[in-house]
Amino acid sequence: MTRLSGMPDAPESRAATIASLKDEKMARKERIEKQSWKPGNVLSPLPVVLVSCGGTEKWKPNIITIAWTGSVCSDPPMLSISVRPERYSYEIIKTTGEFVVNVPSLQQAKTTDWCGMVSGRNVDKFAESGLTPAPPLKVQCPIILECPINIECRVRQSLPLGTHTLFLAEVVAVQVSSALLDARGKFRLDKAGLLAYGLGQYFALGPVIGRFGFSVRKRKRKNRSG
Amino acid sequence: MTRLSGMPDAPESRAATIASLKDEKMARKERIEKQSWKPGNVLSPLPVVLVSCGGTEKWKPNIITIAWTGSVCSDPPMLSISVRPERYSYEIIKTTGEFVVNVPSLQQAKTTDWCGMVSGRNVDKFAESGLTPAPPLKVQCPIILECPINIECRVRQSLPLGTHTLFLAEVVAVQVSSALLDARGKFRLDKAGLLAYGLGQYFALGPVIGRFGFSVRKRKRKNRSG
Repeated sequence: MTRLSGMPDAPESRAATIASLKDEKMARKERIEKQSWKPGNVLSPLPVVLVSCGGTEKWKPNIITIAWTGSVCSDPPMLSISVRPERYSYEIIKTTGEFVVNVPSLQQAKTTDWCGMVSGRNVDKFAESGLTPAPPLKVQCPIILECPINIECRVRQSLPLGTHTLFLAEVVAVQVSSALLDARGKFRLDKAGLLAYGLGQYFALGPVIGRFGFSVRKRKRKNRSG
Repeated sequence: MTRLSGMPDAPESRAATIASLKDEKMARKERIEKQSWKPGNVLSPLPVVLVSCGGTEKWKPNIITIAWTGSVCSDPPMLSISVRPERYSYEIIKTTGEFVVNVPSLQQAKTTDWCGMVSGRNVDKFAESGLTPAPPLKVQCPIILECPINIECRVRQSLPLGTHTLFLAEVVAVQVSSALLDARGKFRLDKAGLLAYGLGQYFALGPVIGRFGFSVRKRKRKNRSG
């Protein structure tokens, strides 16, 4: 049943409205056709981040580019990254239990792609990329100075899933670039020039189109003026 | 040590170059200041999706808006969603073991926010939002017709993490809107008008800035012409 919230109960006109809404829905339905694809990783857009790790006596600092990442819990604040066991960084993260998620901006787009193309087994990615290792607050591996957001993580659990192992990690410290704070001290994510990833392409993040809860706030404002 | 790849070994000029690079790096370093935040969920941008569930005899179809989602494994193709156990959809997903991740576009931005603001306990979100339930291929819950990408999932594991429970799920079917296929049958994600989420704000996805591997391909092209 199609019922719009807040509609008055006027049986006859209401029935007509519902009928026309249903017709519209059917018409729309006919126009939207679907194509079936084989099951795959099509969730988009995803974050694309530079994960730094190492920085201990045994492991020199390394960087790996990762799009298989996401927030997984609000409290405790946790995120996940998925890493192939063949990757050089896998062993580092597995043995140190620590990493930093560095969120790059457009200035680091090419470097972000490059850090996913070469292996830390052969290349010192900090040295060759020109990215600057900077002091972490709670973990041992360096943060990447140029990235506007740096999230220090400690692994709580690792789960082999298939090609990838999922690291579930607690966020233990966060640093952001002061240059992105406005006059009132608010962090302007919209000025950070972030990247996103989907189906083999990097995207620039576009403009803000609304704040969390805007659908309800707008309704309230309408009610107040009406 | 700052070493640029492909640089010839010319001790004196090289030393000078490294020194100037180091100066530049130091200068840059001094300009980038960091502010420390309390640990939290600052990973951005995240996908923001409409998860449909239910559609069985016991559970009518419902929709929940989720940003705590991500790809977690390439083979088998898997994604994760995190849901608070208090949410109405939690019980549905927990008992049916199925859900669909529907990726909305700008046309559904307000509805996407709204579906995260109201509970399926009180509201029939399909009916009130005007979103159209359409046939799934492999699961029981309907896909959302208007969303350009529909990912049908079966839960393989659920992990309580704190405020949220993580559902690790295998992608069992994918449908995309045929209208987004170009003349050559390529799916134009850049024309889908997708949304992203970060720090309480919804963003429009901007333009494509490169394809996976573009940093290496560009280098190759340069070498060829040089």
